[in-house]
Amino acid sequence: MKKLINKPVDFVRESLEGMAAAHSDQIKVNFDPIFVYRADAPVKDKVAVISGGGSGHEPTHVGFVGQGMLDAACPGDVFVSPTTEQIIEAIRTVHGGAGVLNIVKCYWDDMDVFAEAAELALTEGIPAANILIDDDVAVSESVYSHGRRGTGTTVLAERICGAAAEQGYDLPRLADLCRQVNLNGRSMGMAFTPCTIPAKGTLFELGENEMEVGVGIHGEPGRERMSLKTGDEIVEMLALEIIADPAYERTVREWDSGKGEWVDVHLVDPPFQSGDQVLAFVNGMGGTPVPELYLAYRKLVEICQKKGLTIVRNLIGTYITAIEMQGMSITLLRIDDEMLKLWDTPVNTPRLRRGA
Amino acid sequence: MKKLINKPVDFVRESLEGMAAAHSDQIKVNFDPIFVYRADAPVKDKVAVISGGGSGHEPTHVGFVGQGMLDAACPGDVFVSPTTEQIIEAIRTVHGGAGVLNIVKCYWDDMDVFAEAAELALTEGIPAANILIDDDVAVSESVYSHGRRGTGTTVLAERICGAAAEQGYDLPRLADLCRQVNLNGRSMGMAFTPCTIPAKGTLFELGENEMEVGVGIHGEPGRERMSLKTGDEIVEMLALEIIADPAYERTVREWDSGKGEWVDVHLVDPPFQSGDQVLAFVNGMGGTPVPELYLAYRKLVEICQKKGLTIVRNLIGTYITAIEMQGMSITLLRIDDEMLKLWDTPVNTPRLRRGA
Repeated sequence: MKKLINKPVDFVRESLEGMAAAHSDQIKVNFDPIFVYRADAPVKDKVAVISGGGSGHEPTHVGFVGQGMLDAACPGDVFVSPTTEQIIEAIRTVHGGAGVLNIVKCYWDDMDVFAEAAELALTEGIPAANILIDDDVAVSESVYSHGRRGTGTTVLAERICGAAAEQGYDLPRLADLCRQVNLNGRSMGMAFTPCTIPAKGTLFELGENEMEVGVGIHGEPGRERMSLKTGDEIVEMLALEIIADPAYERTVREWDSGKGEWVDVHLVDPPFQSGDQVLAFVNGMGGTPVPELYLAYRKLVEICQKKGLTIVRNLIGTYITAIEMQGMSITLLRIDDEMLKLWDTPVNTPRLRRGA
Repeated sequence: MKKLINKPVDFVRESLEGMAAAHSDQIKVNFDPIFVYRADAPVKDKVAVISGGGSGHEPTHVGFVGQGMLDAACPGDVFVSPTTEQIIEAIRTVHGGAGVLNIVKCYWDDMDVFAEAAELALTEGIPAANILIDDDVAVSESVYSHGRRGTGTTVLAERICGAAAEQGYDLPRLADLCRQVNLNGRSMGMAFTPCTIPAKGTLFELGENEMEVGVGIHGEPGRERMSLKTGDEIVEMLALEIIADPAYERTVREWDSGKGEWVDVHLVDPPFQSGDQVLAFVNGMGGTPVPELYLAYRKLVEICQKKGLTIVRNLIGTYITAIEMQGMSITLLRIDDEMLKLWDTPVNTPRLRRGA
């Protein structure tokens, strides 16, 4: 296996040992159970923002712990959910007295462990809101999920909600903001190559002239396997699906930590409309060089202009990945002035830093 | 070819169109001839810092244009040097009246075009100093170069000299600082996979169980092709070569823009010694996920401790690449208090940002 690893079973821990050594001014790592948390945690009277999920999507989530983003991130093994124990221990460590927002990508196992952790937290007097990210327009049923998968919008939600928590939003307001980010964000991805899990090997096969459109961040099948196209054609295919996506309705279970019970919430993602302001996020899947992402962004600008969408901010780089997969995803977030102001505040994490 | 490209001949230009659209607050792009420059250039009475070379090493150099780093970067086509015309036009555009420092990686073609540009600049009344980066301990003769190749130390020199220029260093002092960074920096890299040039295809072959140790950033052969080893063994192999490397002596031609002539300068890289303070730079070659780089950093910390080197700063990520090659390089820079202070100043470029 062509990777900088020792024993696959040690990979996540050894990598986090390196992170801890490299970024001791920003983060600390707890190794038993494993989670990464802000060096200055707990921040008193601030809602703590937590996320987590399988490893292999780095820098999501562990690279985004720090001022203006996450208070803690709980990584499982590669493409394996973390345990409830990791999450509750992270909650205990970073809770500053104002509750916890858990940002949860829509995959069964992630949802289950965060649900258990939220219930458990309340028994310890810590209110926790779990907000689901389900933004991937490619498929409505997948290998590890029912409904849309959680992908690129997760990064944007972590940034915007992390900024809002820093500014003193209370838990209900922060949970509502996170829900709004999710409702207004849509993503779709594609892959040129498969990815290789350290403990398991290559996940799937793609022919020399093939790509997978609508792929998931675990290499899950997307909408269609097709012959290679030009960069512009690929960007057009993804962007038009995202922009034309109709209202997406579903009912999700949310934990009401006030009442100590689960409630059904009906959610509708409003479609994009000409005149919308958007944040455009072009994301590399792990093995794609950044100049190719800029080439993609160039075409995305043209398409958004044609559709009446004004790009007011952008994020271009390798931020939510499927290990070393070559490919990319596009996320468009309809952004209002409140989110925009939050986006522009300082952020100081190992893999995203600005104004700090 | 599995890339986000349209016609290979348009790749560099189309990618830079995306960059220009994405980062108009930081950079501008001139398209005929092609170079990237600071949005606020020329900065009056500041020495302008310029670099350039073939594309395919991104974010080096075009991603590092902005406050606290480069004033301009001149990209050639993929793995092809820029032209003298690009460089002289960049010099004219960003020269703020205090001269120009050209940071040049040790490859024949790059050295030639920057030499011509420096001579030409003087005929227009612009003093330019060209400082060579030749930091790669792997080989002393290579495909595109005589003497050691210029690799990871280039990124550190651009950052430190960009900071110094911002602080008002004059040209002789800045050129001397750049020379000092080069003398005190050493690098070595390795590759798991080859890379693919858009217009040419895959550059070389590597067997399923093979890696290339001492590889160059164009996929040039290194010291040895060998069977795969563990991450720790690979890091140890590179780091020990770097740390044990003896004094490296050579004579380089430098342009004396005061006299308007070329002078021979005898240079000696002093070897590392127990007690040295270093900046440790673990660099991904393009297709290697960041958690693997952290795993490598973990081992590097251990080795440096054993050898009496104190890591006082680090840089970990994908900064100087061979397109989508999987692999990494290690750079150690003996860093003094002056360089350290400069390293910690704000930097505001598309791909490296801190405190701004």
